[in-house]
Amino acid sequence: MKTYIDCIPCFMNQALRAGRISTSDDIILKKIMDNVGGKLKDVSLTEVPPRSAMIIYDEIFRQTGIEDPYKKIKKESIDLAKSILGQIRNMVESAPDPLLAAVKAAIAGNIIDFGACEDFDIKKDVKASMDMDLSINDYEVFKEKINYARTVLYLGDNAGETVFDRLLIENIDARVVYAVREKPIINDAVIEDAVDSGLADICEIISSGSTAPATILEECNERFLGLYHGGADIIISKGQGNYESLSDSNENIFFLLKTKCSVIARDLDTETGALVLKAGKNYDL
Amino acid sequence: MKTYIDCIPCFMNQALRAGRISTSDDIILKKIMDNVGGKLKDVSLTEVPPRSAMIIYDEIFRQTGIEDPYKKIKKESIDLAKSILGQIRNMVESAPDPLLAAVKAAIAGNIIDFGACEDFDIKKDVKASMDMDLSINDYEVFKEKINYARTVLYLGDNAGETVFDRLLIENIDARVVYAVREKPIINDAVIEDAVDSGLADICEIISSGSTAPATILEECNERFLGLYHGGADIIISKGQGNYESLSDSNENIFFLLKTKCSVIARDLDTETGALVLKAGKNYDL
Repeated sequence: MKTYIDCIPCFMNQALRAGRISTSDDIILKKIMDNVGGKLKDVSLTEVPPRSAMIIYDEIFRQTGIEDPYKKIKKESIDLAKSILGQIRNMVESAPDPLLAAVKAAIAGNIIDFGACEDFDIKKDVKASMDMDLSINDYEVFKEKINYARTVLYLGDNAGETVFDRLLIENIDARVVYAVREKPIINDAVIEDAVDSGLADICEIISSGSTAPATILEECNERFLGLYHGGADIIISKGQGNYESLSDSNENIFFLLKTKCSVIARDLDTETGALVLKAGKNYDL
Repeated sequence: MKTYIDCIPCFMNQALRAGRISTSDDIILKKIMDNVGGKLKDVSLTEVPPRSAMIIYDEIFRQTGIEDPYKKIKKESIDLAKSILGQIRNMVESAPDPLLAAVKAAIAGNIIDFGACEDFDIKKDVKASMDMDLSINDYEVFKEKINYARTVLYLGDNAGETVFDRLLIENIDARVVYAVREKPIINDAVIEDAVDSGLADICEIISSGSTAPATILEECNERFLGLYHGGADIIISKGQGNYESLSDSNENIFFLLKTKCSVIARDLDTETGALVLKAGKNYDL
């Protein structure tokens, strides 16, 4: 997906939000805003948004020297998610179609996002999402394909959301490789977060190699790319960042996300706040 | 009121919104965003926000050459407001306290704002506001002071809102001088708009001299300043822009506005979407 002009004010909002996580010094904060503003001219509208967004996080690091400002927040999100995992698992197990319920739990967890979101309530929002219908619903083809898959490449997104991904992985009868970011960026999960979320005992956890809050293939490592380009039978891609970077993919990919901004909603031809399970264009539905 | 860091992403939103009114060419639009971004470093946090916001509108003019992009929108707002003026007047005249109802009508009209607002529905929102209570309510002191006033300086805000200002002016038994911007800026009223709104037969219309979407005293003309600094017994200031530029005023001023952003709401210690009638600090309430 390309960067829309509407993404530009949003970059400034992200800069302020992420800047405030890293510093409470208004002089440094103003410097971050000034410098990100000055770099907007380097943002190309033909580039995917998460790559453009990197100017924000590089600038915040340059001004504050803090490498992982979301470390504490990530831990809190994981703990909060774990505290309701049992309830959500009960909802999944008692559902008429547990796989569908697990898909919804995994998408519901995508509400945890400190990049795109101003405000959310993990406990309340995840439970509320479980009662919603999928706005884009390619579940039937997903179900058919997942039943035949031997290897699934699962692209993780945010720390905390990772906890609910477990419920979907538990309902997949295949080898699952769970890929996370190479190093901390916003609240996106890295290997440590995936382990902390309890995923190590049910799947293999790898780094994709991408340092963006997305999956930028040019950055990805060989092992990841082997799985991405055919090594895995199916790819499950979680969240907006992965969608933004891979929406044009020709692989056997399914996008699971909650739409959190009007640009993504418009790109997907749905509304903001929608639960989405969308088959990649390879499926030609 | 000073410029908050939170105003900075909002400037970029305003640039995009106002840019889109002036041009549909994405290349020009991107240039506007790049250049406004580059000028953020010139924004001083000790300056009032509407003065900082001028970089946006100067840049849009520089890139598009269009001096009054909101001309058509202002005309439409005025016509739409006129179409419900009769209904709102009935509500005012049949109210237990017509002056209070007229104050609310004038504040309700402040929902018309293409600078601060993403979206609004004049007919629906104005009527809905008439049923709301004032969140900041200095009406008793306003009523007392307005009864003794011989000359009232009324600072207009947006075109369309001007139509509802008439209802308040009709309920004031004094000479009213209605001040508007020196030249077109966003959808703020200029003399032509005030006349088109039907104000010429009930009050005197003057330009304040200010070219900002606010009342920047350093820019104001002598006639206006004479009225502002004591020539008028009371000043009625409409809208956010006038509040932002005059909130520290020591004159006998009353601010009538609808809060349309979280920064103003916080500054006024109220919520977004609130109806406000606030006495200036001179009253020491």
